[in-house]
Amino acid sequence: MRLAVIGVGLIGGSFALALRQAGKVSHVLGVGRNRANLELARERRIIDAIAPDAASAVREADLVLVAAPVAQFPAIFSELRDCKALITDAGSTKRDVIAAARGALGKRIAQFVPAHPVAGAEQSGAAAASADLFRDRRVVLTPLPENRAESVTQIEHMWEACGARVTRLGAEEHDAVLAAVSHLPHLLAYALVHDIARRANAEQLFAYAAGGFRDFTRIASSHPEMWRDICVANRDRLLAELSSYEGELEKVRALVEAGDGAALEKLFTEARDARNRWLKSSS
Amino acid sequence: MRLAVIGVGLIGGSFALALRQAGKVSHVLGVGRNRANLELARERRIIDAIAPDAASAVREADLVLVAAPVAQFPAIFSELRDCKALITDAGSTKRDVIAAARGALGKRIAQFVPAHPVAGAEQSGAAAASADLFRDRRVVLTPLPENRAESVTQIEHMWEACGARVTRLGAEEHDAVLAAVSHLPHLLAYALVHDIARRANAEQLFAYAAGGFRDFTRIASSHPEMWRDICVANRDRLLAELSSYEGELEKVRALVEAGDGAALEKLFTEARDARNRWLKSSS
Repeated sequence: MRLAVIGVGLIGGSFALALRQAGKVSHVLGVGRNRANLELARERRIIDAIAPDAASAVREADLVLVAAPVAQFPAIFSELRDCKALITDAGSTKRDVIAAARGALGKRIAQFVPAHPVAGAEQSGAAAASADLFRDRRVVLTPLPENRAESVTQIEHMWEACGARVTRLGAEEHDAVLAAVSHLPHLLAYALVHDIARRANAEQLFAYAAGGFRDFTRIASSHPEMWRDICVANRDRLLAELSSYEGELEKVRALVEAGDGAALEKLFTEARDARNRWLKSSS
Repeated sequence: MRLAVIGVGLIGGSFALALRQAGKVSHVLGVGRNRANLELARERRIIDAIAPDAASAVREADLVLVAAPVAQFPAIFSELRDCKALITDAGSTKRDVIAAARGALGKRIAQFVPAHPVAGAEQSGAAAASADLFRDRRVVLTPLPENRAESVTQIEHMWEACGARVTRLGAEEHDAVLAAVSHLPHLLAYALVHDIARRANAEQLFAYAAGGFRDFTRIASSHPEMWRDICVANRDRLLAELSSYEGELEKVRALVEAGDGAALEKLFTEARDARNRWLKSSS
């Protein structure tokens, strides 16, 4: 089994390592924009060889993973027109990725089974890749009407071989759900750090930031290009979530302005209890 | 050295454990509203005995720590009118705590050296107390003009004996700085979880929440009463920070609406770099 990975970063590199460890692939070709990163991926035995471009990488492949920031997908898919292998991806948004695939792949669209591993880290690049990244993490497939059932099952098995728990959603639903629980929190964390960093007394403010701030803003150390692309690709859903959140903030503001301790305590308690129930159910 | 702890929760209990471990106190009296929590504190040898009220707890004490939610401070200080010992506290806000002390302690105000250990956890109660909670954490003293220099030094040594790095700020400055890097993030995290928990599809949304959401919202599992009191006590500073943040969100919204990827990437990069510099400098 020969795997081609287009974009050998945290996600692409981890997929290759996990499938190799599971004995599912014997040879991995890597493609990417950053030569030093590809060399590192080869040194780390994440990939066996570097291909000059996506078109040649996929020529002999049995399986292709596209794991680049989503704005690059149209250009990448246009190189996959003659691809005979099954293709999956790791894009964090699905409507735009599917539209890009439809625009470029023609009848080969049936070979593309869209996927989103809901796993990540604030580190990026092949240096951060790990065979365990997807273990017990969720991978969402958003299969297409054109996909053959066996193709979807085959891709499902690949992600399961990485240790992931695979579920299926429609692309619309995927983008709406992820906007709420992933894309918006990233935007909020970036905004908070940015709002503090631009102050004249930023150094003093950071000096008193502690563990709560560190965890709240961990995702503000995420890959800026990747998150730029997600925010642009999923902007309608993200803006809807931002509006909902701003509405919530206005309610909270009114309670703080009124000094309404009882209502604040109720809101905080409901939030804490909901979060603790979620932690319990997901552990 | 006899210590009286008023409020034997995470903070009060950890202070007692740390000072005992450091050999600074030989006997600890505890007072609190929750009898079961006090019994647990005695079982865990956090305290040696339970006092019926604050007034009797401090009668034989050499040092008093007030570690209750800040709305209780006026009532607690009114019980300390005859206290001969040095008093410190662990309130997360300082202007209101100092005002409460001034209102109740009269000439004994000189014995009160206000402090805020910038340490915590989302767990609460004596069950979560630990001798190591303050190790390498910051404790802010906001000394009063009435304090004798030796009193401030003595309180400083006590917090240092807990392993803390002690610094000093004015109460005004303390409340402004903490509103930005602690109080606002807590409010934002509670609001996000609350906004999701109230939806009809909350269960589905939580099902796709992953590690980023977990860390972003960790502080939404904090003690609701404690945070209610902080939000009310520091409301002017908190509302100023909320306004600043909402202004930042409006700028971010405009960039997302315009699909301005370049500006988003710049903002995300600046935030990431600022955060990473902070992590590096604080490690």
